[in-house]
Amino acid sequence: MLTLQMKDAPLIRDPLSRAGCGHASRGVSGGTPPILDQKTNSWKKLVNVSVTGATGMISNHLLFKVFGQDQPIALKLLGSESSVHALEGVVMELQDSLYPLLREVSIGIDPYVIFEDADWALLIGAKPRGPGMERAGIVDINGQIFAEQGKALNAVASRNVKVIVVGNPCNTNALICLKNAPNLPAKNFHALTRLDENRAKFQLALQAGVFYDKVSNMTIWGNHSTTQVPDFLNAKISGRPVKEVIKDTKWLEEDFTITVQKRGGVLIEKWGRSSAASTAVSIVDAMRSLVTPSSEGDWFSTAVYTTGNPYGIAEDLVFSMPCRSKGDGDYELVQHVAMDDFLWDRIKKSEAELIAEKRCVAHLIGEGNALSDLPGDTMLPGEM
Amino acid sequence: MLTLQMKDAPLIRDPLSRAGCGHASRGVSGGTPPILDQKTNSWKKLVNVSVTGATGMISNHLLFKVFGQDQPIALKLLGSESSVHALEGVVMELQDSLYPLLREVSIGIDPYVIFEDADWALLIGAKPRGPGMERAGIVDINGQIFAEQGKALNAVASRNVKVIVVGNPCNTNALICLKNAPNLPAKNFHALTRLDENRAKFQLALQAGVFYDKVSNMTIWGNHSTTQVPDFLNAKISGRPVKEVIKDTKWLEEDFTITVQKRGGVLIEKWGRSSAASTAVSIVDAMRSLVTPSSEGDWFSTAVYTTGNPYGIAEDLVFSMPCRSKGDGDYELVQHVAMDDFLWDRIKKSEAELIAEKRCVAHLIGEGNALSDLPGDTMLPGEM
Repeated sequence: MLTLQMKDAPLIRDPLSRAGCGHASRGVSGGTPPILDQKTNSWKKLVNVSVTGATGMISNHLLFKVFGQDQPIALKLLGSESSVHALEGVVMELQDSLYPLLREVSIGIDPYVIFEDADWALLIGAKPRGPGMERAGIVDINGQIFAEQGKALNAVASRNVKVIVVGNPCNTNALICLKNAPNLPAKNFHALTRLDENRAKFQLALQAGVFYDKVSNMTIWGNHSTTQVPDFLNAKISGRPVKEVIKDTKWLEEDFTITVQKRGGVLIEKWGRSSAASTAVSIVDAMRSLVTPSSEGDWFSTAVYTTGNPYGIAEDLVFSMPCRSKGDGDYELVQHVAMDDFLWDRIKKSEAELIAEKRCVAHLIGEGNALSDLPGDTMLPGEM
Repeated sequence: MLTLQMKDAPLIRDPLSRAGCGHASRGVSGGTPPILDQKTNSWKKLVNVSVTGATGMISNHLLFKVFGQDQPIALKLLGSESSVHALEGVVMELQDSLYPLLREVSIGIDPYVIFEDADWALLIGAKPRGPGMERAGIVDINGQIFAEQGKALNAVASRNVKVIVVGNPCNTNALICLKNAPNLPAKNFHALTRLDENRAKFQLALQAGVFYDKVSNMTIWGNHSTTQVPDFLNAKISGRPVKEVIKDTKWLEEDFTITVQKRGGVLIEKWGRSSAASTAVSIVDAMRSLVTPSSEGDWFSTAVYTTGNPYGIAEDLVFSMPCRSKGDGDYELVQHVAMDDFLWDRIKKSEAELIAEKRCVAHLIGEGNALSDLPGDTMLPGEM
């Protein structure tokens, strides 16, 4: 049992040290025992959750939401040199929240330290696109970060680490990351499209006039960008195909898709900042989907490695597809989903975008020189 | 059953309308039924939770944490004219989070609308003290807001509404609020000292080298300010008096107290902003303490109306004291707590501060003209 501790820790002098938690209290009587797993009747092992961009808005929500019912957690938070003081502030707020399942917090600026033995790596930190910056520019800048983090994961993370990339462009960042981590299963790398799935479910529920828990089988295909494809062909409302419940085909084909694709941008316009709370909620949803058996007949969306996919999507990309899990942290692609020309055309457009992004980061994935031919008009979600 | 709905709502043209939720879908088949209460075997009634300062940082955390296990909630969010767009953004993020227990969201800028039938009123919004502003100045400015909100609660809230004041100076704001709501029970007004309690528990656990769930009976006495009194005389660690476990009296009397009192200010220094996530966590803790039976022998801290208190604290103040609840939303003051000179001297200092604050807002509580004789050196928590 470890208490959170940061007082007197050599945080500023040596930000690489495990500063967030002291081991001094290990074995002190009166400590909290580990949690007894009801199913297996064995003590639950502490799970290491590494989080990058730990002082950003998304993480600030996520860190206070990540606790489940009975899984003790150690948080390992990666910041930058300029954010070390803010990281200490995050730790203070976590301490003052008295989460019974939070057993350790470490902070640092070196991914080789913070990713050590990580069971989960939530890669949230990324630079936002500045004014006048080309999409190709931000793809390259962030790509460098994710190449470095992939190498660090490859070197020090748990051999079965699950990686969820949130920092944009998240699909291509996830591809860069997995290519730089050849000793880890490529299958374990995800890019987050769960917020898009949640947004699509809400819009369908709103249009159908039902509560959102009636919407199931919601796939987001492709890139977490404005080319993403919310799939209303396979989605269901109260167990019936969406098209049987919502007869307005024009709404489905145009309004629905555009609303979901541009939701992030509208939110920025309203709020003056990008979604943080709902992104954090969707990260927790994504994790829960991997550690909870999927409901009979249902699935969830996550962008994963395409090699071996049954849909005919180009291999060697990270592409959002429908998945199911037995709740063991692993997943399988759903085998038989319907496809029609409308859906397939859109999927191909998102695929083309991802292939272009990939050419743009060829130098980061060991495929020669970068070729930046990204169409200038595609945006990251959340950009107007 | 109601879905969240804001599309096409006349939000900007008429921000007073119930814009966040449409009733269009009420009765649509496939809706979610209310939740069956396991204990009473009856359907759980929707609880109305009104929140002010709904676009601020604390609320932005709170709104995504307020959901429990089985209590359906309607959120009613109060903003200002300048924050209506941001309020719409908050609603969008709540929608996209698909909370199964969130059944309605309304937004508006008129407390007489937003407090209608409120079962809980979480009064978070308040102006922060600007550079060079006297404490008396901010007490007066915020006092006006809470007088108005008290009148609105008095007029339209549930007759059994529980009010938790978070906006600073929260004790005096709560006093102003209850004085302006003569038709509501004064007992139902709280000022939040739960974050102070949580901080005190963490510090004692850290010093004793135990996990924080071993710390109980932690009272914060007095004002939520730097005169607050974290009570180590009555607190326990693993069921034993703190003074038996922590022998370092100097640490208890000096370091401990100062650390808790100034924690908010240190956090601002580190983080560049005041605590939001941990404040939100403590608001949820405070609510949970009132709707969950208190553990045998334990208690929690909340600042409540002093009239009739058994400790000899001046009447007609809002003062943090030890309380227990049967879990029905109500509470009782703990009757027999130990007192010594050290503790009593400090309690009297915090009492004196609150009496001075009260004189400063006499015009807002029907007691004649304000007299501003606040000592200049007291600060609000979170201020350096």
